Amino acid sequence: MLETLKQEVFEANMQLPKHGLITFTWGNVSGIDREQGLIVIKPSGVEYDAMKPEDMVVVDLDGKRVEGRLNPSSDTPTHVELYKAFGNIGGVVHTHSRWATIFAQCGMGIPGYGTTHADYFYGEIPCTRRMTAEEIKGAYEKETGAVIIERFADLSPDDIPAVLVHSHGPFAWGTDPMNAVHNAVVLEEVAMMAWHCKALSGNMIEPMQPVLLDKHYLRKHGANAYYGQR
Amino acid sequence: MLETLKQEVFEANMQLPKHGLITFTWGNVSGIDREQGLIVIKPSGVEYDAMKPEDMVVVDLDGKRVEGRLNPSSDTPTHVELYKAFGNIGGVVHTHSRWATIFAQCGMGIPGYGTTHADYFYGEIPCTRRMTAEEIKGAYEKETGAVIIERFADLSPDDIPAVLVHSHGPFAWGTDPMNAVHNAVVLEEVAMMAWHCKALSGNMIEPMQPVLLDKHYLRKHGANAYYGQR
Amino acid sequence: MLETLKQEVFEANMQLPKHGLITFTWGNVSGIDREQGLIVIKPSGVEYDAMKPEDMVVVDLDGKRVEGRLNPSSDTPTHVELYKAFGNIGGVVHTHSRWATIFAQCGMGIPGYGTTHADYFYGEIPCTRRMTAEEIKGAYEKETGAVIIERFADLSPDDIPAVLVHSHGPFAWGTDPMNAVHNAVVLEEVAMMAWHCKALSGNMIEPMQPVLLDKHYLRKHGANAYYGQR
Amino acid sequence: MLETLKQEVFEANMQLPKHGLITFTWGNVSGIDREQGLIVIKPSGVEYDAMKPEDMVVVDLDGKRVEGRLNPSSDTPTHVELYKAFGNIGGVVHTHSRWATIFAQCGMGIPGYGTTHADYFYGEIPCTRRMTAEEIKGAYEKETGAVIIERFADLSPDDIPAVLVHSHGPFAWGTDPMNAVHNAVVLEEVAMMAWHCKALSGNMIEPMQPVLLDKHYLRKHGANAYYGQR
Repeated sequence: MLETLKQEVFEANMQLPKHGLITFTWGNVSGIDREQGLIVIKPSGVEYDAMKPEDMVVVDLDGKRVEGRLNPSSDTPTHVELYKAFGNIGGVVHTHSRWATIFAQCGMGIPGYGTTHADYFYGEIPCTRRMTAEEIKGAYEKETGAVIIERFADLSPDDIPAVLVHSHGPFAWGTDPMNAVHNAVVLEEVAMMAWHCKALSGNMIEPMQPVLLDKHYLRKHGANAYYGQR
Repeated sequence: MLETLKQEVFEANMQLPKHGLITFTWGNVSGIDREQGLIVIKPSGVEYDAMKPEDMVVVDLDGKRVEGRLNPSSDTPTHVELYKAFGNIGGVVHTHSRWATIFAQCGMGIPGYGTTHADYFYGEIPCTRRMTAEEIKGAYEKETGAVIIERFADLSPDDIPAVLVHSHGPFAWGTDPMNAVHNAVVLEEVAMMAWHCKALSGNMIEPMQPVLLDKHYLRKHGANAYYGQR
Repeated sequence: MLETLKQEVFEANMQLPKHGLITFTWGNVSGIDREQGLIVIKPSGVEYDAMKPEDMVVVDLDGKRVEGRLNPSSDTPTHVELYKAFGNIGGVVHTHSRWATIFAQCGMGIPGYGTTHADYFYGEIPCTRRMTAEEIKGAYEKETGAVIIERFADLSPDDIPAVLVHSHGPFAWGTDPMNAVHNAVVLEEVAMMAWHCKALSGNMIEPMQPVLLDKHYLRKHGANAYYGQR
Repeated sequence: MLETLKQEVFEANMQLPKHGLITFTWGNVSGIDREQGLIVIKPSGVEYDAMKPEDMVVVDLDGKRVEGRLNPSSDTPTHVELYKAFGNIGGVVHTHSRWATIFAQCGMGIPGYGTTHADYFYGEIPCTRRMTAEEIKGAYEKETGAVIIERFADLSPDDIPAVLVHSHGPFAWGTDPMNAVHNAVVLEEVAMMAWHCKALSGNMIEPMQPVLLDKHYLRKHGANAYYGQR
């Protein structure tokens, strides 16, 4: 069942330690089969060294396990919400990567300060509001998805494929599981540089020129893209 | 004698260089056999590359060596005090890991700024007071244990499994030697992020919401935990 | 065609991940054969792990591909401009290396604060002005070269072999492709140290003494150099 | 000639890249045979990957090469001065390691903020004054040694085995070449932590208590030391 997607999700998960995005088991990647309405996700709390493709868990769009002997990631309800609200995405990743988490803990978004950012994110990477006591005490992981979706009410998840959850850490997404991880790596890179730009400038740095943001984002995305081997 | 525990203590010690927590021989892990009242600890000043399980030293609850040809770690009396005062712990680790030591040198605790912290530490990781001249000139390593215990007079060592010793560095503990090292790794991670949150926020950051701290800590610890493969 | 230069350019490109200067495919090195007026450059958007010497693309001094089945780097027109304006250089490299990019994003040059800088760069490494909307919307990559050349109107590219492009990142160059990468590595090193010197000094640090800059630069460069095995 | 010392000096040099203290060829270690009055030192500008024990160069106490086909390190006259002035030292190392160089570029010493420092350095690691134009234009490398020695007029090089040369970088020394490198590694570690302590405390941190400095330094050094397997 969904063997190809399981392999993809497994391989995308294994990129997390390789890129230094996680400590221990603190991360999870999922992928979706839109036709079947099924999600493949990492099991909860399993060591990366010991993980195999067949350990991946299949859940439906209610987050209910339909295949696999292990529990799915405890963050599964957040992934499910994102897939339901963001219709074009094919993969989701959550980590506690250091630099993105620093911004999340401060409740601050990451402005676009340069072309590295603009090549992947079409504007500021936003941070959610704090969750309420009711949300936290209720269906917490599902509500985490809800505050992300609320934050994107006026934003395009296709053009800004990442978010910071307040006091928690980043979620990123993409066209498929590996692309989601790719965006999570870039997020960490731009977060690191943004942190140091703020300090170097004495907090006086302004976001980059919109015309330069347009140029770089549209050079790589959309109908008139010309970067790479297309 | 205590071959299994020696192996565990050896393996936990070998995790210190792997996780980048130590330089040269600056660290030590111990474990306790509560039934026999015996502690197994790393020998003093021995290179990690050359260390073997049989080099581990066995001491009693007075810190007296009862087996092993090498001297035990010079920090042994601190470990002994912690085992005697904190009845549930099975392993102790001491390092001079960079980020935790930075806070220790400043005499500052590490507040909980996010869920990474809350997943492991149920509140601020405290820093001890400065030691007095009498304590330093006296049974220094034993007194180091005493100031830690004093700091935990109103805190639970089971829920906050680490401390910073003023002007010195961190001690962490856990249910067994490997769990103690696990907590030491997390301590370093949250210390690094807390340092950068303080700077990013211009020192205006406040500890996380208590309700979110509760949610994350209790999601992984205690009777109602639901994280992982339980 | 240009097999030796292709090998050199390939090897210089492979130094970028080795020295930690790039993430994914974010970088490119080129070299020039001045006699034939041909440039060899990395293809656009190709993974380093999969890249081979024969993938290198040959372009002429109009940036037109004359050999190779892949598209040349999208930054090719910038490289071409630099080769045309800076007559002594034999290699060019572009990266988004973290510390240099931080200065570029802030629009700040990197002053010479010590002998590490002075051994390679005879004065401040400059940052270009922001590009205009017309330049960005026009022949963007070629105009990027033009603003670099404008910045060097009163500077010697032979003595200051690197520049920061505002809101973007660094370009470096050298006598050949490997030497260009060498300079890019040093640039990253001095940028990291300059960032921390500014913070440590509360932004009060001044550039180093001119007499010490002269001593170190001229000890390694020019007619009276005496460093190394010459 | 001096085959054992050549091997020791070679091995100590090879520790520099292993501990991340150098980029390219920016560092050199030497050792002295006090009886013969001969110094063995790394050749100038040779790649570490290609270096062999037999490449080490032998010089006398005037810095004159007495054996070896390669030029000795251009910093040889500095090493010679240190050996002549500091009678107990057996090895000297010079690097441009990042954190120590940051302090050197700022012209600031590294105060003792904790026991990591106190275990190796009996007080602040000093920074020299700026060199004069005459010193720089004259016998520069020899004068570099002279300003170090001047700085130690009231300090013991045996108890503070490192110095920062203003606008340049660190020199460290020890009882033999490997011990000198050991001290250079510790220097980098304490410099990194001191930088972050200054920032974390808003520059309000004070040096550690003298009684704790005494305790830790004397626990490892001198007649009453009890650390390690002695």
